[in-house]
Amino acid sequence: MKLKVYADRMSQPSRAVIIFCKANGIDFDEIRIDISKRQHLTPEYKEINPMKQVPAIVDGRFRLFESHAILIYLACAFPGVLDHWYPADLFRRAKINSVLDWHHSNLRGGAATYMLHTVLGPALGVKVNPEVAAKAEKLLTSSLSKIESIWLKGNSKFLMGGLQPSIADLSLVCELMQLELLDEKDRIRILGPHKKVEQWIENTKGATRPHFDEVHKVLYKAKARFQEQRSMGVNREIESTIKKVLPSKM
Amino acid sequence: MKLKVYADRMSQPSRAVIIFCKANGIDFDEIRIDISKRQHLTPEYKEINPMKQVPAIVDGRFRLFESHAILIYLACAFPGVLDHWYPADLFRRAKINSVLDWHHSNLRGGAATYMLHTVLGPALGVKVNPEVAAKAEKLLTSSLSKIESIWLKGNSKFLMGGLQPSIADLSLVCELMQLELLDEKDRIRILGPHKKVEQWIENTKGATRPHFDEVHKVLYKAKARFQEQRSMGVNREIESTIKKVLPSKM
Repeated sequence: MKLKVYADRMSQPSRAVIIFCKANGIDFDEIRIDISKRQHLTPEYKEINPMKQVPAIVDGRFRLFESHAILIYLACAFPGVLDHWYPADLFRRAKINSVLDWHHSNLRGGAATYMLHTVLGPALGVKVNPEVAAKAEKLLTSSLSKIESIWLKGNSKFLMGGLQPSIADLSLVCELMQLELLDEKDRIRILGPHKKVEQWIENTKGATRPHFDEVHKVLYKAKARFQEQRSMGVNREIESTIKKVLPSKM
Repeated sequence: MKLKVYADRMSQPSRAVIIFCKANGIDFDEIRIDISKRQHLTPEYKEINPMKQVPAIVDGRFRLFESHAILIYLACAFPGVLDHWYPADLFRRAKINSVLDWHHSNLRGGAATYMLHTVLGPALGVKVNPEVAAKAEKLLTSSLSKIESIWLKGNSKFLMGGLQPSIADLSLVCELMQLELLDEKDRIRILGPHKKVEQWIENTKGATRPHFDEVHKVLYKAKARFQEQRSMGVNREIESTIKKVLPSKM
């Protein structure tokens, strides 16, 4: 029975799991759980993942949720996966586990909360709180500095001097890709000072080509929509300014 | 060379690592990093853990931080550790990884934030925000409900039907122990409705006796101090009420 991956490509951990499967030639069926249509909250999906989150997998009789646990399981259960993704070596494996654990309350905590309280909140019915956004940006930028100074020091192509990506590279880079949805000036303000991080994102894209861009297509489309809305907003602002200005001159 | 564990027993992940070592007969030196004295921020400790957090370990030339990664490393690197702590079986191991991943943004996110914005904030110089505390309590109680309904269903002694504890039981139970510092009525309000969780805490204590209580001694002492301060606060309140009431009667 083929592996089933329940995912929404708008979710960053979903994208990491899908890219991993594709990059490693794992045969799987992708079952789309559309979060915007609240499909993750149905009783049917609760049977797959009682936490009502994506991604989740079903492999024969075995069910699993949480993307890091899924990536580790796939790396260990499927024989074709190359060692660099999750090395058998105890020490290298421990260091990858450490990055993945750190990710939760740091890079993910910062990036996901920042996105929710800026561009994503209105679309998801969440009341945006600028104070929360400011605090999240601080956590996000301090996380980026730590990634650079601790795990990308020297001319490291991937985290911890790796010559090939591990599941930690894939998970963290997919997390960062959501910043594409930001207004360009905000994205540059946050990512711009972190040249090593920008290069690392490119390296991870390159190492998982063409799957990385293919799986991110939905995000790039959303980015285009957000940009369009912003420029329409700007046009409306100009119109409204013109309207305000014109009568006073008439 | 003996394993070195850098820890502060007031930190819940530090306690989990120390109890694990003691329960498994791992020979180690405990190096106290007193957070209240900001010893985790010194340049010397930054050499051990660049993230400036406890716990961290040094095993020969190998350095590692993040408690879950440490627990997994110890379970795999030390031959005397019994299988139930982190089973070699791929499926059981994946399920334990899943619980540990979930822990970060749910039980830990809820419990640690709630404690910081109630009893611990004033001692740590953090401005307590009741709105943040209320949100954290919601996350904490929903996490407790999920633990009960998903991982402690039936008459499960430990998570996922285990007859012996795993590193997930130890990590999550140590997290919950910080609730001991709360005012009794708050602790009962939060934990009281979750009888299975209360029993699971007792089971984990029992399975790691006498180490569990020995390592938690510092927490029990802090609990006594908090209670004393509270009762002095109540006494002061009574005194101040008496003073307010008396003059009006005189």
